[in-house]
Amino acid sequence: MNKIRKLFGIKLPIIQGGMVWNSGWQLVSAVSNNGGLGLLGSGSMYPEVLKEHIQKCKKATSMPFGVNLPLLYPDIDKHIQTIVDEKVPIVFTSAGNPKTYTSELKKHGIIVVHVVSSLKFALKSQEAGVDAVVAEGFEAGGHNGREETTTFCLIPNVKKHIKIPLIAAGGISTGQQILAAQILGADGVQIGSRFAATAESSAHQAFKEKIALIQEGDTVLTLKELAPTRLIKNPFFQELEQAYANGVSKEDLQNLLGKGRAKKGMFEGDLDEGELEIGQSSALIDSILTVKEVFDLLLKEYKEAKENMPVF
Amino acid sequence: MNKIRKLFGIKLPIIQGGMVWNSGWQLVSAVSNNGGLGLLGSGSMYPEVLKEHIQKCKKATSMPFGVNLPLLYPDIDKHIQTIVDEKVPIVFTSAGNPKTYTSELKKHGIIVVHVVSSLKFALKSQEAGVDAVVAEGFEAGGHNGREETTTFCLIPNVKKHIKIPLIAAGGISTGQQILAAQILGADGVQIGSRFAATAESSAHQAFKEKIALIQEGDTVLTLKELAPTRLIKNPFFQELEQAYANGVSKEDLQNLLGKGRAKKGMFEGDLDEGELEIGQSSALIDSILTVKEVFDLLLKEYKEAKENMPVF
Repeated sequence: MNKIRKLFGIKLPIIQGGMVWNSGWQLVSAVSNNGGLGLLGSGSMYPEVLKEHIQKCKKATSMPFGVNLPLLYPDIDKHIQTIVDEKVPIVFTSAGNPKTYTSELKKHGIIVVHVVSSLKFALKSQEAGVDAVVAEGFEAGGHNGREETTTFCLIPNVKKHIKIPLIAAGGISTGQQILAAQILGADGVQIGSRFAATAESSAHQAFKEKIALIQEGDTVLTLKELAPTRLIKNPFFQELEQAYANGVSKEDLQNLLGKGRAKKGMFEGDLDEGELEIGQSSALIDSILTVKEVFDLLLKEYKEAKENMPVF
Repeated sequence: MNKIRKLFGIKLPIIQGGMVWNSGWQLVSAVSNNGGLGLLGSGSMYPEVLKEHIQKCKKATSMPFGVNLPLLYPDIDKHIQTIVDEKVPIVFTSAGNPKTYTSELKKHGIIVVHVVSSLKFALKSQEAGVDAVVAEGFEAGGHNGREETTTFCLIPNVKKHIKIPLIAAGGISTGQQILAAQILGADGVQIGSRFAATAESSAHQAFKEKIALIQEGDTVLTLKELAPTRLIKNPFFQELEQAYANGVSKEDLQNLLGKGRAKKGMFEGDLDEGELEIGQSSALIDSILTVKEVFDLLLKEYKEAKENMPVF
């Protein structure tokens, strides 16, 4: 049996990335109801908002779901308390040291998965006792690794060296890509961009339409001095580029970025002034679908890819 | 029948990238003798050197082989004359406009393939009348595209929009990756780094040993102001980094790079002062093999991957 299905007790080894401003209870419960694993994006939620989304999610699905927890979240202890109180069975941690919270979460019977962008951190995560790792390539949207290793090179290398189940992320938005990721060594996949552009995503409609519209080369990994982030090359990015050309300091870059840029772009739909985080696979997305339609399409493409093996 | 095998009249849809300083007649003839397609790397050869390598290659194999021709090569007319005179049946063009030379080469009955790093140029190449395209992702070694699209995202997108045969490149050094590339939409693959580290490669032994040694994260895409190039983070790269930190001008960067850095590194084996071009898949390479051993390994891995389809 597939290790990811077994680990989470789900029907399909497809996980929806817990993206800030995109992943509220509607998206998460829809993914879980369709047989995948939905993850709430707690990075953009105040503690009381997370609690509300967990409670609504529980009402909307009887299937397992989880929370994505960025370990740099300022009020992390409150988030953890909420997760424990609400008996959320699964937590995906990211952006931080897997040693810090894994044992605490596991003490409460929670399944813990850590998101990494390198073999080095995959090994550290395994050592920290996580149940699985997500290895995310350079093509992924939002926060990203410093080594810039792509999904195509990262997955086989992590697979070669770790023993725990492996989830591939970064660039995956079709069924063919799910099969390809599995052949590279993944047990399951985490998909972000494709779910950001669904009807159930909590992102602003204008952002979803932008995802469906943009083409290859329209995203870029930038802000490397702060935290490498893949975003759409919109007017806000042009401002960043101009600042770089003028030799901006790290402090001025931080000031230019300011607070709330991601919310402004993805949640409020300001396509010019906001930060629009999305992956390279947005070039393969040309419509806004429902979560059910996405699952139907992924399964159809996956099945066709498996039935029509390439000739050598 | 596989389109790439048919196009070139070869036994296996595996092409060896025509890499500067690595791809002389020994490597090329060995690849072609093992059923793949070897390509001479004419970018680092004087016209008379290319002639010599073609002639030696013809003596060493009766199978098809070709020449990689960077369209920015200063003495390109001489190279084309040599290729025509010597009746080389296949040319892979790169780094330039596919419209400029495709019809001239095809007039002489030569099969022309163009190397691209974006869908836009794949479409331009198809329009220019090439017989196939190589779509090369961000993870590839040496010269690279400005859009930074990875193999995992580039191949499905190009496949979706072009009609001519598609060869995937960038990050491929195992048999599992060949199958994954095919599932993403490729008809065949072009492999660079894995062949750079073979006994038959004309690269310096010290460079080959370095390829076998380096790990994930040890290469980087840099020199973006000149021509984006993936290379090993060696002392020469540290110099580049220091220059960037000091706000180097494009001219000073060009002066720092100077002439002959790639030769110094890859051909003369100066691992500190030379430019060491290699792809991210070097992390998956841990030994120097013969070309025959590489083919045996790739076929074994490919076969195993096909026989052991992942469980979903």
